Amino acid sequence: MLTLFFSPNACSLASHIALAESGLPYELRRLKFAENEQRSPEYLKLNPHGRVPALVTERGTLTETVAILAFIAQSAPEARLAPLDDPFRFAKMQGFNTFIAATVHVAYAHKRRSYRWADNQSSFEDMAAKMPKNMHDCFTLIENDFLAGPFVLGEDYSVADPYLFTMSDWLEGAGVDIGDFPRVQDHYQRMRQRPAVVRALSEQEMAA
Amino acid sequence: MLTLFFSPNACSLASHIALAESGLPYELRRLKFAENEQRSPEYLKLNPHGRVPALVTERGTLTETVAILAFIAQSAPEARLAPLDDPFRFAKMQGFNTFIAATVHVAYAHKRRSYRWADNQSSFEDMAAKMPKNMHDCFTLIENDFLAGPFVLGEDYSVADPYLFTMSDWLEGAGVDIGDFPRVQDHYQRMRQRPAVVRALSEQEMAA
Ligand SMILES: N[C@@H](CCC(=O)N[C@@H](CS)C(=O)NCC(=O)O)C(=O)O
Ligand SMILES: N[C@@H](CCC(=O)N[C@@H](CS)C(=O)NCC(=O)O)C(=O)O
Repeated sequence: MLTLFFSPNACSLASHIALAESGLPYELRRLKFAENEQRSPEYLKLNPHGRVPALVTERGTLTETVAILAFIAQSAPEARLAPLDDPFRFAKMQGFNTFIAATVHVAYAHKRRSYRWADNQSSFEDMAAKMPKNMHDCFTLIENDFLAGPFVLGEDYSVADPYLFTMSDWLEGAGVDIGDFPRVQDHYQRMRQRPAVVRALSEQEMAA
Repeated sequence: MLTLFFSPNACSLASHIALAESGLPYELRRLKFAENEQRSPEYLKLNPHGRVPALVTERGTLTETVAILAFIAQSAPEARLAPLDDPFRFAKMQGFNTFIAATVHVAYAHKRRSYRWADNQSSFEDMAAKMPKNMHDCFTLIENDFLAGPFVLGEDYSVADPYLFTMSDWLEGAGVDIGDFPRVQDHYQRMRQRPAVVRALSEQEMAA
């Protein structure tokens, strides 16, 4: 059994959708950010970095969305969630996912989590003010260069798709109009129809 | 033939060392950051994000260190640069590498590249002042939790090792004493002796 530690609408949604796509049995454990449960001693034993997602397996705990998504795809090859037999296309997928983790997600975090990188209120305000422009720049790259369409890698769905979906879902909160990115918007709307996405969103709502 | 676009002492060093370990034939193309070559129209065609590393292959260009490192390992299985047949351990490696990309590297970038996330000089100074503490925190996690030792994954060398080496190499410039992290320091010193590291460092010097 796999256990996913998540927080509603956090980046852990990508791993949750991938689990729902995979057909693997899983259970969910919600962490309450409002009560700082991600920094509780018990959780820090699982993930010393104090973040979601964490995926507990029989062999130990995995962290980092990029790694968890690939692990889910490799653990359920029959679900065809990644180009597992083609190192070049696998690297294209991992490259996209790492761009999300190291650039897009990081850009977004500069609004609510700006205290990670600075100490003064004026810096927090400066970072929060720049965040929408950075998110807009990231999605311009995705729209024009990285999203092959209709899925991230082209015709074949992969775990890059729930990760893009999760970021697209943050755009409204970031003050960015998804309508500026028609191909991303089309991807987002198609993703919302997928049974695995519907299931993950409703499971997150029930756990909330 | 593989072509690595790099800048001396940038994060592209990790991919360069991995290529040297792999036994695969490769050539190097240096980009001059001082002349902003990473943003030239020709380079943006290869990597629209305007960063190093980029690895040009016969099938197209790969970007993002996390993806390039795994691709090199998968392209040279006989060099045993990753636990390719064990999805759990592969995910441990990818998780470590993504922690470097999305947290350690990002922490470091807040000194020289703070303009990415804010606009005011006072914010830049605030971020630069906090960077050494963040790097220290990252390396405390690596020292105590993530570095199994003697290599990142334990007894077996992997492409996580050149990535850690590259970050350790930045510590002095970050104003952090590597001596605070004895296990990391031991790793760093052993890495410096490896022929592939010696070769990559001297190739970077010759290209500079
Ligand atoms: N690089 C990590 C980032 C994980 C991360 O930052 N998660 C956020 C939620 S989106 C979190 O746990 N934040 C809690 C906190 O900062 O205390 C990944 O991609 O998995
Ligand atoms: N997430 C990317 C980051 C790449 C990156 O930021 N590279 C830096 C050098 S360490 C760069 O190209 N900087 C040039 C610039 O910011 O203009 C990766 O891990 O490959």
